[in-house]
Amino acid sequence: MYFNKTKIGILGGGQLGKMLCLSAANLHLDISILDNAPCSAQNYCTKFVEGSFKNYDAVLAFGRNVDVVTVEIEHVNIEALEVLETEGKLVHPSTKALKIIIDKGIQKEFYFKNNIPTAAALFFEGNTDLTAHFKNNFSPFVWKSRTGGYDGKGVIYVCDENILASLPNQPCIAETPIKIKKEISILLARNSDGAIVFFPATEMIFDDNANLLLFQTCPAEISNYKELEAQYWSEKIATEIGMVGLLAVEFFLTDEDKLIVNEVAPRPHNSGHHTIEACMTSQFEQHLRAILNLPLGNTELRKPCALLNLLGAEGFSGEPIYKNYETVFGIEDAHLHLYGKQTTKPYRKMGHLTVLNDDVKKALDIVKKIYEQISCES
Amino acid sequence: MYFNKTKIGILGGGQLGKMLCLSAANLHLDISILDNAPCSAQNYCTKFVEGSFKNYDAVLAFGRNVDVVTVEIEHVNIEALEVLETEGKLVHPSTKALKIIIDKGIQKEFYFKNNIPTAAALFFEGNTDLTAHFKNNFSPFVWKSRTGGYDGKGVIYVCDENILASLPNQPCIAETPIKIKKEISILLARNSDGAIVFFPATEMIFDDNANLLLFQTCPAEISNYKELEAQYWSEKIATEIGMVGLLAVEFFLTDEDKLIVNEVAPRPHNSGHHTIEACMTSQFEQHLRAILNLPLGNTELRKPCALLNLLGAEGFSGEPIYKNYETVFGIEDAHLHLYGKQTTKPYRKMGHLTVLNDDVKKALDIVKKIYEQISCES
Repeated sequence: MYFNKTKIGILGGGQLGKMLCLSAANLHLDISILDNAPCSAQNYCTKFVEGSFKNYDAVLAFGRNVDVVTVEIEHVNIEALEVLETEGKLVHPSTKALKIIIDKGIQKEFYFKNNIPTAAALFFEGNTDLTAHFKNNFSPFVWKSRTGGYDGKGVIYVCDENILASLPNQPCIAETPIKIKKEISILLARNSDGAIVFFPATEMIFDDNANLLLFQTCPAEISNYKELEAQYWSEKIATEIGMVGLLAVEFFLTDEDKLIVNEVAPRPHNSGHHTIEACMTSQFEQHLRAILNLPLGNTELRKPCALLNLLGAEGFSGEPIYKNYETVFGIEDAHLHLYGKQTTKPYRKMGHLTVLNDDVKKALDIVKKIYEQISCES
Repeated sequence: MYFNKTKIGILGGGQLGKMLCLSAANLHLDISILDNAPCSAQNYCTKFVEGSFKNYDAVLAFGRNVDVVTVEIEHVNIEALEVLETEGKLVHPSTKALKIIIDKGIQKEFYFKNNIPTAAALFFEGNTDLTAHFKNNFSPFVWKSRTGGYDGKGVIYVCDENILASLPNQPCIAETPIKIKKEISILLARNSDGAIVFFPATEMIFDDNANLLLFQTCPAEISNYKELEAQYWSEKIATEIGMVGLLAVEFFLTDEDKLIVNEVAPRPHNSGHHTIEACMTSQFEQHLRAILNLPLGNTELRKPCALLNLLGAEGFSGEPIYKNYETVFGIEDAHLHLYGKQTTKPYRKMGHLTVLNDDVKKALDIVKKIYEQISCES
């Protein structure tokens, strides 16, 4: 089938879905989006289908009308996707891959089984067995909900025994805290022929208040050796789960200079937004090429860059007002992306700004300065 | 008003309208498109209004619902735009600028009056006075319809007296043919504050059969001095007509190494499509910034490049089949754009391909090779 005749269905129409649509638009690909309205992607696709990607019937009906189903978020109705797979529909990433990833317990077991370096963790059914374990034997740990976590939600750093009782009562893992130097992300794309390409590693700079990635730079300041090691583990994960599409692997670089896998996302990822302007091929086009089993694009970095995630300001909820955002147009090689969300909330991802500069430190300084100047309020 | 609250209306939803929409989508700008369906842009705008941009009532009603009206084609209903201007609506480019450009006779007089170098020309009401002039005194000339010409239509090279009788009977100009070395294009953007930025000159390589621009390269192989001279004339034109938006000025470089203006377009232009990937700011974003009176972006070329216009193959009309187009995905830093037109026709612009390469000659070789390999048939 000609690549441009393939009907692609995307579960989710947030900013990732929107940026997939915009990339697909260059090739005039046929893209359907399933999500509740209003959403960021709805004006940029061939067909918008209103409904929940968590709903069995909605996903099944949606998938039956397209040739390939993909996702912009992992937390979709897996049962419907399994039916679609048995009906012969292409589902990328596969339900096998999704099931390993969406449950952080299964993901953790996958790492253990495949000798992939990751933080030690204990598994609990809920608050009763968790409290029983820790109450007489407390040491700080990272509580993670097994399912539903996203953008820092579902993760709690438990540093005090008194917090135990207030933790959500649900299946969880308790990870040994890791002292880290930095956090990096490896993005790779793998098509169904098994070809793999890596993007240059991104360095992520978290904001402690928001527990959200606020700044990032590319290239990451790590040794070539460490980057190759990170690529090795990322490729191992992609191959083992049979990934087709874009895979983002987040690593911690520990104080002892060891790489350990934090978690993965089987889709375009925040840590790859800079690839739109800064790389020869964007992560979004790469994901589309991978799921269409086309040759993958060159990932070379055109220029170093820094990225600022534009989050909703604290204390504001409602229709967004982008205060002083005009200033970014005065900055050389700065690229503003607004997601068009109808309402802002504290720390909600409302957009991002990528700044390219021959000197990555200057790029970071520029986005840090802009961060002080602009604000998404209501 | 916050830039993102301004409702922008574009007359025309062809490939230029579509690429304006995709650029606007990054900023989540509110874009309405007026055109007949189906058209390239209709799935990529905030609001699609079905109707003709040549129809007085349609343009008037459309314009009244937006804050700024712009065009992706000059041949729109000017009378409606004049009413909108008197009602205080922002119209960029203005009807004054459009009226100078859409009639090649008025455009020519404008050059004469402002001492802008251009080919000599005679003016005729139709075939009677034209034939009367040339029948006893023939020398070859370029016949140009005063209105409605586009993409090589409305231009006939008259090299033989016997052709005279078959020329369309309509107001026209007869230009003295010029022996040219090459053709270049200068793109500039001017915002309503009067700020101007120039893109690096593009060199256009026409296909004689199609009378259409088939290849182009950037940077153009001309001296800095010639490029500055071309910028001088372009700025003079932009300022004199009060252009707000993107202006493309096509120049001939004559055998005597003189620059003369061929014609202008008051909108994004084919000769600037490579700016999407090859320049820091694309011509489409630049046009949007200009009409919103935002600071204009840096136009620096990231890398030399060549562009191939993907035209419908001779002998095919109907639903397009993009034969061997998959091959372009195997080429480094090659960027395919398909316009999604429902039908192909011989020489119709169906898409374009931009190839970036450190060596502009290699880039041109690559697109010439691809031209031999792919074909848009039906």
